[in-house]
Amino acid sequence: MNIATKTITPEITKGPLPASTKVYKPGEIHPDIRVPVREIAVHPTAGEPPVTVYDASGPYTDPTQAIDIEMGLPRLRAEWIAARGDTEEYEGRMVKPEDNGFATGERLTLQFPNLQKPRRAKDGKTVTQIAYARAGIITPEMEFIAIRENLGRKAANEKLPRDGESFGAAIPDFVTPDFVREEVARGRAIIPANINHPEAEPMIIGRNFLVKINANIGNSAVTSSMAEEVEKMVWATRWGADTVMDLSTGRNIHNIREWIIRNSPVPIGSVPLYQALEKVGGIAEDLTWEVFRDTLIEQAEQGVDYFTIHAGVRLSYIPLTVNRVTGIVSRGGSIMAKGCLHHHKESFLYEHFEEICDICRAYDVSFSLGDGLRPGSIADANDAAQFAELETLGELTKIAWAKDCQVMIEGPGHVPMHKIKENMDKQLAVCGEAPFYTLGPLTTDIAPGYDHITSGIGAAMIGWFGTAMLCYVTPKEHLGLPDRNDVKTGVITYKIAAHAADLAKGHPAAKVRDDALSRARFEFRWEDQFNLALDPETARSMHDETLPKEAHKVAHFCSMCGPKFCSMRISHDIRDAARQEGMEAMAVRYRAGGDLYMPKDL
Amino acid sequence: MNIATKTITPEITKGPLPASTKVYKPGEIHPDIRVPVREIAVHPTAGEPPVTVYDASGPYTDPTQAIDIEMGLPRLRAEWIAARGDTEEYEGRMVKPEDNGFATGERLTLQFPNLQKPRRAKDGKTVTQIAYARAGIITPEMEFIAIRENLGRKAANEKLPRDGESFGAAIPDFVTPDFVREEVARGRAIIPANINHPEAEPMIIGRNFLVKINANIGNSAVTSSMAEEVEKMVWATRWGADTVMDLSTGRNIHNIREWIIRNSPVPIGSVPLYQALEKVGGIAEDLTWEVFRDTLIEQAEQGVDYFTIHAGVRLSYIPLTVNRVTGIVSRGGSIMAKGCLHHHKESFLYEHFEEICDICRAYDVSFSLGDGLRPGSIADANDAAQFAELETLGELTKIAWAKDCQVMIEGPGHVPMHKIKENMDKQLAVCGEAPFYTLGPLTTDIAPGYDHITSGIGAAMIGWFGTAMLCYVTPKEHLGLPDRNDVKTGVITYKIAAHAADLAKGHPAAKVRDDALSRARFEFRWEDQFNLALDPETARSMHDETLPKEAHKVAHFCSMCGPKFCSMRISHDIRDAARQEGMEAMAVRYRAGGDLYMPKDL
Repeated sequence: MNIATKTITPEITKGPLPASTKVYKPGEIHPDIRVPVREIAVHPTAGEPPVTVYDASGPYTDPTQAIDIEMGLPRLRAEWIAARGDTEEYEGRMVKPEDNGFATGERLTLQFPNLQKPRRAKDGKTVTQIAYARAGIITPEMEFIAIRENLGRKAANEKLPRDGESFGAAIPDFVTPDFVREEVARGRAIIPANINHPEAEPMIIGRNFLVKINANIGNSAVTSSMAEEVEKMVWATRWGADTVMDLSTGRNIHNIREWIIRNSPVPIGSVPLYQALEKVGGIAEDLTWEVFRDTLIEQAEQGVDYFTIHAGVRLSYIPLTVNRVTGIVSRGGSIMAKGCLHHHKESFLYEHFEEICDICRAYDVSFSLGDGLRPGSIADANDAAQFAELETLGELTKIAWAKDCQVMIEGPGHVPMHKIKENMDKQLAVCGEAPFYTLGPLTTDIAPGYDHITSGIGAAMIGWFGTAMLCYVTPKEHLGLPDRNDVKTGVITYKIAAHAADLAKGHPAAKVRDDALSRARFEFRWEDQFNLALDPETARSMHDETLPKEAHKVAHFCSMCGPKFCSMRISHDIRDAARQEGMEAMAVRYRAGGDLYMPKDL
Repeated sequence: MNIATKTITPEITKGPLPASTKVYKPGEIHPDIRVPVREIAVHPTAGEPPVTVYDASGPYTDPTQAIDIEMGLPRLRAEWIAARGDTEEYEGRMVKPEDNGFATGERLTLQFPNLQKPRRAKDGKTVTQIAYARAGIITPEMEFIAIRENLGRKAANEKLPRDGESFGAAIPDFVTPDFVREEVARGRAIIPANINHPEAEPMIIGRNFLVKINANIGNSAVTSSMAEEVEKMVWATRWGADTVMDLSTGRNIHNIREWIIRNSPVPIGSVPLYQALEKVGGIAEDLTWEVFRDTLIEQAEQGVDYFTIHAGVRLSYIPLTVNRVTGIVSRGGSIMAKGCLHHHKESFLYEHFEEICDICRAYDVSFSLGDGLRPGSIADANDAAQFAELETLGELTKIAWAKDCQVMIEGPGHVPMHKIKENMDKQLAVCGEAPFYTLGPLTTDIAPGYDHITSGIGAAMIGWFGTAMLCYVTPKEHLGLPDRNDVKTGVITYKIAAHAADLAKGHPAAKVRDDALSRARFEFRWEDQFNLALDPETARSMHDETLPKEAHKVAHFCSMCGPKFCSMRISHDIRDAARQEGMEAMAVRYRAGGDLYMPKDL
């Protein structure tokens, strides 16, 4: 036990980001809710209030909260869930040896020590956020989200000027709890919030809200350990991951996932198929509905918030992939395709989709309908296989909605820029505006090692067009498993893409941070520039490489121009001159035309 | 002398990229020209010819060529220029102490040891590529470029399928020398090729050609040395920079530039204003036309291929910047603005623009009309100051064209995604389709340390919309001077942006490399994946971090999925099955609908 503590606890990154304070905003409908936002203080000379930003990092960045990963995070939503009176605790499924890949002894990851009994819906009750929304109920989760999405703005009268092209999205000036409810009721947004993951802070994924990002973590048969994965989750949320997918394969999947969920302040997604396949020794054709069903319940009881389900891979679509340059590149898709072919029938996911809905509904696990036939290369983008599957995902969406389940749709992949918008337009049309959740897309195949960038370009664009959540791609994509630095690079790149999309969509509060940082830049408030940056550490260390002295952090120049050339300084001189000389008045005369020469003493 | 040799020569990076051979293609109109392309060999199992890619790296990557930076590169174009009989050698301007910032003794960078006399146009002759083009002359430069742009394709009958959205660009299936001539004659493309830089390999910048990228280098008052700068130039072109701008400030500008030009296989751009300002002690208001004119001649004689000239900063526009969040951020723009204000008159650049044209014409220095009022923040994008200046740049373009000068137009800066296209559309309309050359643009201000990415997004988009050359931004933008790693990161990021733009525009040969790499990925040809990548070294080292063994480079799996899960491997199984079972025929039956179940023995 001590050994485990030693190997795990010291690895967890804690503490606030520079100049940042976590502040909790109370609810009005639900006065007991406390919604975290991060306030970044600026230098007193600015005469500006702190800049409030969205904060996905949970208690880890709050120095007043004790962190003990063996206890797990506080069970924030436990009382809200219990108060609804529509769920019950039960014994739950017994952990089986195959859940951890038959790992034993030293190879078995320790069980999480503070296990709780799972809950599920009482007979005849529907406990999903979409069911509440349709019933007109504003849950605490919905009010929490409304406050969170407003980034600290308090009321509609703090109205900011709107500037953007939203392609039909309808982002309100101010998000009300009822707006959240309505968007969830219409299926246009989801709140991934398994009743068995009460530690998570509610968040929303939808086109009329801030663009979200997901970070993938997970060990594989080849490498990585539990302690690393928990820290990767904490680390990813520290830099802004809104959800985390645990894509573990290999051994110890069950136990590692428990540690991750119990300590995660963000929703956790998974691909249950991966674990199910492990249970049948990795042989796709040996997978059965019974093994898969058991895995769904196992993961739903643990608290996974959304499941990727590759039910759109239909038998007749597989031949459409045969002449592709890169065939089927989705792991889930290829597993399902192999099973379909072997048995010459539709997959058990497609055939049992309604039963899957019934399971998900009992725990409020959201669907992430997987794009098993997504293109894996520029050559295969927007092809018949991809769009055939998308049509099926649209049909499945309607089935899930009829079952009161929450749904989002996964999208590509590899797509050249001129074919990106078609993906978004088709998804909106075919899937009834269910949120789109894309992997990139990568806009070229020729830069392995830089696929965070090839895909960040596509992600920013598709986010602008309306994608609700962007699944990150790290520099290691196609090459290896991301380490800690890759996770950070991936998250920051995707925060850039999501924010660029929010700006372009015209989100009313997105520009506040850009403007604050740019004012800091113009006024040579170097510390503020670092602190307002997505990654203050990197900004500071890059600055210090060239101008390490403390004095230079207040200097009115930087290393690019040096003291005499600085354009910002000259701009200040111009502004001063304007104040003294009434430049606007002079400009009118200049613009009057004719001979533009003005005597110096004018 | 020995000391200088020691400190310089060992730093130059030489040798071919992995699996790459530099091949020279001969001309037909001019049989003596030898156009370099890079052939990347793939593994024999692929059964594919090598992939031919554009090669900006010059003799440094040709192991058959001796490199001696004290001699400079071979004077490739010297005979072509002499053969035209319209230029003459002359004594040239004497180097003055102020050219090197009055550096003396140990602080003075050594003079380049192998100086040649400069050339200029004979009286009454016009020696610009646009003048030749308008006269119907296909110069060796033009044929060189035609061969280069075709990326090794030999004839129009190697026609590739077209797929893209070009927004009015008209990229031909096959570039002929006469097409190059016509585009140059129309002013829609430029060939930056000072007659005093015969070492440079001809290249073209225009909307109907491959999108190009520029890398900035240059020492500053604060840091950096000549040896570093020469190596940065070589390093930048090794990774794909099509032109290099020397933005040096501080001391030794003249001597460092000489070393750079004499050793540069790509066109060199500069901002003569920076050096002129150094000559007057950094006091903007002390700048005069005489000092500036002298600097133009100094740099034209050395061989600078294009000059950034901020002649669009007019007196009446300056007040338009006063209420900006970030004022004037262009160094050149702020210097000119300060001078304008101080003297209350139009700048000497604007007033003497025709004389500047006369100087440029005598050496064939191309114009890069500077955007001195470009926005420095999201808040200032597309504002009145920026677009007022653009209108003036359009007027200046027409003046330069009337003088038989080549012109491109510089563009922003910081622009949110939804405002990017307006920049391109306006530039095309106002500047008569002269090539656009943009800095990014950055699509958000909030990520210092990652501005290669914030701007790579904007660069890819504006490149797609029609920008002819993208000026790179490194991770150090806003923070410090880029080092060697930053230069590489900036160049690779911009090669990604340019290539993504070529793909989206539907350049007929762009997809060849994507497809070759994707096939290598699908067939687990790991070595080919690395070799075909923009940065083979990084791709390989990232792969080896997780799976270092040589055996894994031929393994049919990677570290993400491990051997059993690999989706690519499963896709191969599917393809094999298709071959055996005639899957297309079966698919027809599946698609016929009804009960999709097919008995296994069918």
